[in-house]
Amino acid sequence: MVNKLFLILVLAGVPLSVAGSLMHWPSVLMFIIYCLTIVALASFMGRATESLAVVLGPRIGGLLNATFGNAVELIISIFAIKAGLIEVVLASLTGSVIGNLLLVGGLSFFMGGLKFKRQKFNVYDARHNAGLLMFGVVVAFVIPEVFAQTMSESETISLSVGISIILIALYLAALFFKLVSHRGVYQSNEGGAEGRHEEPEWNKKIALTILAAATVAVAYVSENLVHTFHEVGETFGWTELFIGVIVVAIVGNAAEHASAIIMAVKNKMDIAVEIAIGSTLQIAMFVAPVLVLVSLLFPTAMPLVFTLPELIAMVSSVLLIIVISNDGETNWFEGLTLLAAYFIMGIGFYLI
Amino acid sequence: MVNKLFLILVLAGVPLSVAGSLMHWPSVLMFIIYCLTIVALASFMGRATESLAVVLGPRIGGLLNATFGNAVELIISIFAIKAGLIEVVLASLTGSVIGNLLLVGGLSFFMGGLKFKRQKFNVYDARHNAGLLMFGVVVAFVIPEVFAQTMSESETISLSVGISIILIALYLAALFFKLVSHRGVYQSNEGGAEGRHEEPEWNKKIALTILAAATVAVAYVSENLVHTFHEVGETFGWTELFIGVIVVAIVGNAAEHASAIIMAVKNKMDIAVEIAIGSTLQIAMFVAPVLVLVSLLFPTAMPLVFTLPELIAMVSSVLLIIVISNDGETNWFEGLTLLAAYFIMGIGFYLI
Amino acid sequence: MVNKLFLILVLAGVPLSVAGSLMHWPSVLMFIIYCLTIVALASFMGRATESLAVVLGPRIGGLLNATFGNAVELIISIFAIKAGLIEVVLASLTGSVIGNLLLVGGLSFFMGGLKFKRQKFNVYDARHNAGLLMFGVVVAFVIPEVFAQTMSESETISLSVGISIILIALYLAALFFKLVSHRGVYQSNEGGAEGRHEEPEWNKKIALTILAAATVAVAYVSENLVHTFHEVGETFGWTELFIGVIVVAIVGNAAEHASAIIMAVKNKMDIAVEIAIGSTLQIAMFVAPVLVLVSLLFPTAMPLVFTLPELIAMVSSVLLIIVISNDGETNWFEGLTLLAAYFIMGIGFYLI
Repeated sequence: MVNKLFLILVLAGVPLSVAGSLMHWPSVLMFIIYCLTIVALASFMGRATESLAVVLGPRIGGLLNATFGNAVELIISIFAIKAGLIEVVLASLTGSVIGNLLLVGGLSFFMGGLKFKRQKFNVYDARHNAGLLMFGVVVAFVIPEVFAQTMSESETISLSVGISIILIALYLAALFFKLVSHRGVYQSNEGGAEGRHEEPEWNKKIALTILAAATVAVAYVSENLVHTFHEVGETFGWTELFIGVIVVAIVGNAAEHASAIIMAVKNKMDIAVEIAIGSTLQIAMFVAPVLVLVSLLFPTAMPLVFTLPELIAMVSSVLLIIVISNDGETNWFEGLTLLAAYFIMGIGFYLI
Repeated sequence: MVNKLFLILVLAGVPLSVAGSLMHWPSVLMFIIYCLTIVALASFMGRATESLAVVLGPRIGGLLNATFGNAVELIISIFAIKAGLIEVVLASLTGSVIGNLLLVGGLSFFMGGLKFKRQKFNVYDARHNAGLLMFGVVVAFVIPEVFAQTMSESETISLSVGISIILIALYLAALFFKLVSHRGVYQSNEGGAEGRHEEPEWNKKIALTILAAATVAVAYVSENLVHTFHEVGETFGWTELFIGVIVVAIVGNAAEHASAIIMAVKNKMDIAVEIAIGSTLQIAMFVAPVLVLVSLLFPTAMPLVFTLPELIAMVSSVLLIIVISNDGETNWFEGLTLLAAYFIMGIGFYLI
Repeated sequence: MVNKLFLILVLAGVPLSVAGSLMHWPSVLMFIIYCLTIVALASFMGRATESLAVVLGPRIGGLLNATFGNAVELIISIFAIKAGLIEVVLASLTGSVIGNLLLVGGLSFFMGGLKFKRQKFNVYDARHNAGLLMFGVVVAFVIPEVFAQTMSESETISLSVGISIILIALYLAALFFKLVSHRGVYQSNEGGAEGRHEEPEWNKKIALTILAAATVAVAYVSENLVHTFHEVGETFGWTELFIGVIVVAIVGNAAEHASAIIMAVKNKMDIAVEIAIGSTLQIAMFVAPVLVLVSLLFPTAMPLVFTLPELIAMVSSVLLIIVISNDGETNWFEGLTLLAAYFIMGIGFYLI
């Protein structure tokens, strides 16, 4: 049923996006159309990736998920960098991090907790993820912030490039660790990985075609979306920071939100947590550094230096989720705590 | 015996307070009289609340404790806000947070640890509290600090009010979670809550009368106490910050100090920890936001923006207690570590 | 074999150091000679301390290790303070903290993890150490940094001295806790401490002689080493900060690096972790405060105030190691994560 809705949205949204951008329809209208279209396209990309993952087996599937899972953010961001909107890109990276941890995580814990009194997930994964969050956000994002204060611009870019290469390398090492070297070593006894005998929704050929078509469409729509930010911000009294942190992040991650919550309500917390935290790690350790490297091809290079509010929002989100997920258990109140933190940051980014 | 001492203190202190403030006795003398009287009155309020809690059952009792537990701080602070002493209020909130975590917590762990080699408490409560401390202090206090740097005064107040409402809402949700939704779900096996068949010290009527009378008296004394700060500070070379953070906080929490240590020495660490950390959460998630909202009724609104030293003192205290209480065990050395941290901060606030 | 190499290094290095410094050989050459000689001498001091520890029993042995373990850093630093190089000393303390946690810890976890899939160590020790790291670095180093911003120089020194005394007192209390009061209380079942029946390498007399001789030699070479920093920095384009944080720290801790890795590869992770984290605690809670107190004897007093990059590097290292070591288990990927964090900081200190 949700899938049908997304199909309609794509079939209507893509032509409307093309028509509207050619005929210069009002920015706010186009902003809404673009956002809805991207959400729908993202869901198709997600399902195609999922099908490919089933066909190609868990290793390559895991790799696919880990690299294509945030393709939409990557594409939107590249067009924003091309348009020189460095601040918006950094803001939307921030938004993805806090959105995935607090909003996706919070909604899954809360909704799942309404149905089940105590929900458990693999505590080894939680700890593994905690270490990576600490590394990817607290070390790799805080260090350039502080060190760049007394650096020249070119030194800041050098530092950012160096850190980006290390981040990507460690991200690949983490995939190798998880999918090859220590696959199954830390499995919980409850056998979360049993249900892998599932049929793919689409066969390989169809999945690849859909993935390619949806990627092209997302790229086209994203490029246009980026150019509506300025006018939309003026209309609603939103800063570009707010658009980046809250709006773009919600649009870019809508598909993940939906599937994490569905998994939580089905009491498959391992998967819900994996989506929320895994997706955050992908943003911090793969999308962000790739964007830094890609930005070198454009006139304005993007340093890995966030504003202080962005950085503090990310760091406090990470500390909160680490403390809350530390015991491998969730309940509705832990979800509510995460949501409350998200609202506090939302108010902050709205007023700033 | 302690109770007798407090009775004498009240019977002598209240008349002396009235006489002294009417006859304008020297500030330093009055400061000492006020402080001792408040400590004694607070102990009566605590015992009255305790009796009511026994009479009214654990749910309403828990609610009572959770709202009246820090009534003294609330009353002192309201009079300080009325007198325009916003900085002193923020300082005394800081003092309550670090005092409860480091001084109350430290003394209980240390004194208990001198008698017992290893003391245990419910690890689920510890983790639940850790999440709330991270939320209530690290997220809810740090965000306005950083975001307000570039905000106008009215935006800062809006942000403070928004955060305060969220804090109070989550605090109420936490009570609902603990007293209703998940009551007994995370009980430790050792049955800390068994001993609830106790007789109340006073019956409902007496307890209510004492609570009302003590509250009125505390209010009267507090209003006068607040006006001695300036002169006392000058006499002893204390800054108002030091008076707020260290002196007021110790006076306002003296009763809790005593009962937490008594519980620790009786090896009832569940209760000792509950007093130290529960009281901190009450300050951060209930007293502080209520004061922000109440301050809107007065000429000077109080933002939820601490000074950087105050904030860092609170954040590092929270991180320290989370790491130390994480395993559900204490010993004398953990207590000493907390006390050492308190002394370091005390020196800092004295010299600043 | 390694021991033979170090013997040759000492026998060649000490005379060359004397000759070179008398004949004013080029700074860079002397810098290399001094560094190698110190590394070799440090290994002799380590072995002598070890032998004495075996002879004198675990209590006094533990005390010896805990005080002489970082004698080389202490000696180098005192000569640097004497030369007025306060910044270099603070930088090398920073370097020792992050070097021990991230480089020594990272290499041991990584090398050990290449051989064993999962390595365990005493989780009680890990938690005890986590509390001390939080206290020694996050509380005791962050507080003066923030509070000193508005303090006069003499207040900053007072604060530093006060904190130093508390740090040393708590460090001694920690030794008493570990070696006397709670000795064996938190022993893991796997009996890491069984292998204590070992023979000392040298008897008491020889060990004391070697320790004394090596200490004198280290002192002599260190004093000369300190005076090469300026020219070496200019030659290689290194800042004094980089020399302090990275170069001096690696030289000063080379012996520990070697023994931690050897222990990890032998699957004795308890000892490897003890070297990495115990050595860090010794630097933060003993060497640093002793240097503050010693500096009072010299013209320039050293405040316990690091630069912001140094502080952030230490705090994020501590948070990372706490999260990673929290579960009492390691694997190669956790080691790699620590190493990646070290490289990020290394790039930062190089570029700053």
